[in-house]
Amino acid sequence: KTLHLIVLLPSVVVSRPFSRVRMKEGEVMIGTQVAKVIQSINPAFPVGCHVVGRCGWRTHTVSDGTGLTCLLSDWPQDVSMSLALGAIGMPGLTALYGLEEVLGLQAGETLLVNAAAGAVGSIVGQIAKIKGCRVVGSSGSNDKVAFLKELGFDEAFNYKTVNSLEEVLMTAAPNGYDCFFENVGGLFSSVAIPQMKQFGRIAVCGSISTYNDTNPQTGPYPHLTMIFKQLKMEGFMVGRWEHKNPESLRRLMAWKREGKLQCREQVTEGFENMPAAFMGMLQGENIGKAIVKV
Amino acid sequence: KTLHLIVLLPSVVVSRPFSRVRMKEGEVMIGTQVAKVIQSINPAFPVGCHVVGRCGWRTHTVSDGTGLTCLLSDWPQDVSMSLALGAIGMPGLTALYGLEEVLGLQAGETLLVNAAAGAVGSIVGQIAKIKGCRVVGSSGSNDKVAFLKELGFDEAFNYKTVNSLEEVLMTAAPNGYDCFFENVGGLFSSVAIPQMKQFGRIAVCGSISTYNDTNPQTGPYPHLTMIFKQLKMEGFMVGRWEHKNPESLRRLMAWKREGKLQCREQVTEGFENMPAAFMGMLQGENIGKAIVKV
Repeated sequence: KTLHLIVLLPSVVVSRPFSRVRMKEGEVMIGTQVAKVIQSINPAFPVGCHVVGRCGWRTHTVSDGTGLTCLLSDWPQDVSMSLALGAIGMPGLTALYGLEEVLGLQAGETLLVNAAAGAVGSIVGQIAKIKGCRVVGSSGSNDKVAFLKELGFDEAFNYKTVNSLEEVLMTAAPNGYDCFFENVGGLFSSVAIPQMKQFGRIAVCGSISTYNDTNPQTGPYPHLTMIFKQLKMEGFMVGRWEHKNPESLRRLMAWKREGKLQCREQVTEGFENMPAAFMGMLQGENIGKAIVKV
Repeated sequence: KTLHLIVLLPSVVVSRPFSRVRMKEGEVMIGTQVAKVIQSINPAFPVGCHVVGRCGWRTHTVSDGTGLTCLLSDWPQDVSMSLALGAIGMPGLTALYGLEEVLGLQAGETLLVNAAAGAVGSIVGQIAKIKGCRVVGSSGSNDKVAFLKELGFDEAFNYKTVNSLEEVLMTAAPNGYDCFFENVGGLFSSVAIPQMKQFGRIAVCGSISTYNDTNPQTGPYPHLTMIFKQLKMEGFMVGRWEHKNPESLRRLMAWKREGKLQCREQVTEGFENMPAAFMGMLQGENIGKAIVKV
């Protein structure tokens, strides 16, 4: 049986000047999948091998190989290949590079991560724990908070039910945050940035609270806080360190095999349920990576 | 005759969480001065020597020496000591460290600087020219634009009279900006950030357009642009590299002596005119460093 797992991606692209490229009716919706090669004349991708590709929402794809990558050659039989779309794939690499390359996270530091129960956030927090950090996670449901506690987060809260986000952040880290892994943007960032320590670093990975804005949300300019605390804020995309991917995927796999990385997935069955799964993901209904099994 | 030059500083301080420490009635207004020591029992500051200190708005100061620094020991006789408050002082160091330490500006890159005719901005642009960069400067009057052209800026414009700041920025650098030295904040930043190149760097030095806000100004969140262009934005204060000051001041002095650095000052005479000079500075009436001669 052919295995098709499709991962759901938000569809926002920004060009210069600031504008969104929206998808047009009739275009194939973007998405990444693990798929089995069922016919091939390309020796790089023989029949039976598994590949990861951004082929969009399709049950079957004809490809010349461009943009496809083979699964790690030594992918263990007892590890689900769907993890190549999550913890041992792009989201896991995003977490790793954000922490190591952008933030330069050091043992003993305090890290804040939001959308912490998501595909990226849940790996961010776990890697930060592996590195000996104190981790504070924000998420949007009590189930997610329980999940974060399971993962070993030092502090976790439901931002939707707290009285004051500012107070919760201050209580969770009275001396402030060395690092902030930003997945949410918008109002959360306005509250979190003043909670940084002097010389704090912010990795801007996502901005999920603003992806669906018709008009861009506005908030107070962070300049004064950035100056007086000498903060550094950097946006990044996972492709920047592509040359490190094979080694990095092996590191993620090793942590998974050692039991240091729990890899939660929200699996939806059936191609026809993809739109609902996608919309649910944007509304925060998933814990861990949102996967559709086709 | 005792020489007292007082430099005007804006009075905004930000603590955690975001709030402004406003000066209270009866406090001495903050400011930096070059002053001659007229009485001393401190061997580090003998009578007759000149010091730079943040003593506030005073004609005379009693000090135990804390926070005072002597002028460069080899300060040339034909260079006005008031430059120790400007190009060969804190503003010059700010320009230098912002360009070298924060932005890592490289020859051939394109730099944007706003408040470009100010104490810091005018030095930023000139150092960037020394380094072989293309420099675009924004300022708030036609006189300032003429001054920037004199300084060798490649492009300069009056942001108050342009039809569209966005269009002017695009025309001045059709391929975008590698670096942005930010002195203004607020709306300017919202328009400028989308004009950055991929991997652009932004040094946040000042936010003069927001210093007098009773309520913080708001604008669109920059997260999406920061992510998709992988921008880096860093706030800084000049004190971070204090250990390099003596060497850096000598470099600035050398450029000045070689005619590579024009050091413009806006000199107001008389202690009693200080408040008007200060308010004028915040309203952009000065070209170069605002100085009051007492």
